Amino acid sequence: MADAPPYELHYWPSIQGRGEFIRLALEDAGAPYVDVARLPAAQGGGAQALMKTMRGESGHLEPFAPPFLRSGELVVAQVANILQYLGPRLGLVPADEASRLRAHQLQLTVADLVSEVHDTHHPVAVELHYEEQKPEAARRAAGFVAHRLPKFLGYFERVLERAGGRHAVGGATSYVDLSLYQVLAGLRYALPRAMARVEPTVPRLVALGEAVAARPRIAAYLASTRRLAFGQEGIFRRYPELDAAG
Amino acid sequence: MADAPPYELHYWPSIQGRGEFIRLALEDAGAPYVDVARLPAAQGGGAQALMKTMRGESGHLEPFAPPFLRSGELVVAQVANILQYLGPRLGLVPADEASRLRAHQLQLTVADLVSEVHDTHHPVAVELHYEEQKPEAARRAAGFVAHRLPKFLGYFERVLERAGGRHAVGGATSYVDLSLYQVLAGLRYALPRAMARVEPTVPRLVALGEAVAARPRIAAYLASTRRLAFGQEGIFRRYPELDAAG
Repeated sequence: MADAPPYELHYWPSIQGRGEFIRLALEDAGAPYVDVARLPAAQGGGAQALMKTMRGESGHLEPFAPPFLRSGELVVAQVANILQYLGPRLGLVPADEASRLRAHQLQLTVADLVSEVHDTHHPVAVELHYEEQKPEAARRAAGFVAHRLPKFLGYFERVLERAGGRHAVGGATSYVDLSLYQVLAGLRYALPRAMARVEPTVPRLVALGEAVAARPRIAAYLASTRRLAFGQEGIFRRYPELDAAG
Repeated sequence: MADAPPYELHYWPSIQGRGEFIRLALEDAGAPYVDVARLPAAQGGGAQALMKTMRGESGHLEPFAPPFLRSGELVVAQVANILQYLGPRLGLVPADEASRLRAHQLQLTVADLVSEVHDTHHPVAVELHYEEQKPEAARRAAGFVAHRLPKFLGYFERVLERAGGRHAVGGATSYVDLSLYQVLAGLRYALPRAMARVEPTVPRLVALGEAVAARPRIAAYLASTRRLAFGQEGIFRRYPELDAAG
């Protein structure tokens, strides 16, 4: 019997972005995968190849946006949909329907938070640079830091509390836990002053983040060159003027 | 054998909002359901009862936001997650995994569009009134009308084209088709001038909307008092100053 082909992740090659939630799940499971756009152009990689696919030139119906995953004949897009597909295959979600629905619901709430983080620096239009929407970004970020950030993180803290404290869903690490780690890491990069105020109010979430970072395959991944650095092109960007002292 | 208990939809009682995507699926299927917050307060209805649940006073872990569905012991939140749960039970999605993943992916893209529509009138903060963010809304809406609206609707048009023209997924009406109808209806209410320009470019989508509206149970629902009117409190709001002449 031939080995199953590796998963193909298709995402922008130079940023963590939304693709990172998929990378963390594949890495934690030790799953065989190819991060296609990070291959050399001669092997089909590069941002140009990804853009060509997104323009529909592959012959397939392109998804609306990256990331997407190829698994054999299937093409799956939307981060939460990909994780829902991978979860059972990677052992990163409990088997029962109630837990899977719950994990997916939490992942969709993570996605909502990620969109709101993105819009702190792009409140007017994704087609414009941050520098073209700075006054609007200042207002949006202030509201995000004052209201939305504590609301979202407080919600996930209560989720952990009611689930026993250590995992978002069930009694073991799920893809939701991995995504919550990524959100914490990104928020600490982007909004360190705001996070310094909020973190003491969400101790279970902070402990979860530490536990995920210490998982052997995640620790090895984070120390590797496969883990891209945070920067000024992804979801989580450090603009000190948006990180209000409160 | 006792009848299965009806589905309980929990959503704000005075707006279509995100709950409408669930109502349309339940109505199209002729499924037994209770729109709980629209019951009299003495029967557990009203916005106050919903807010009490959302504050966690029910003893359950509240979802992050309405709508949510109770089905027996299960509580399912997030519109796309609810529709994914209901789809097979209501006969509103094909049976095979590839089609279900695809329907869910498209529904998540609908959710992204809905969020962007909301942010045309609330680009700064959901906690503020529109009147407190009018300059920012004007900028965001202009970009939405110029770039995002044609991009999203053009994408769904291509989805229909590649699927044979009449349905988003498979050979029959799915919950995605019902949601696309609702998006079209809402956009026509909110942005009639912008839609008058875009609609000629998306003929399959327009025809799909007409076909959904003509389905007997949907037509009966739309003519009933169960269908709330569009207004200035939901996702789709008519602020003429945001509906640029282009």
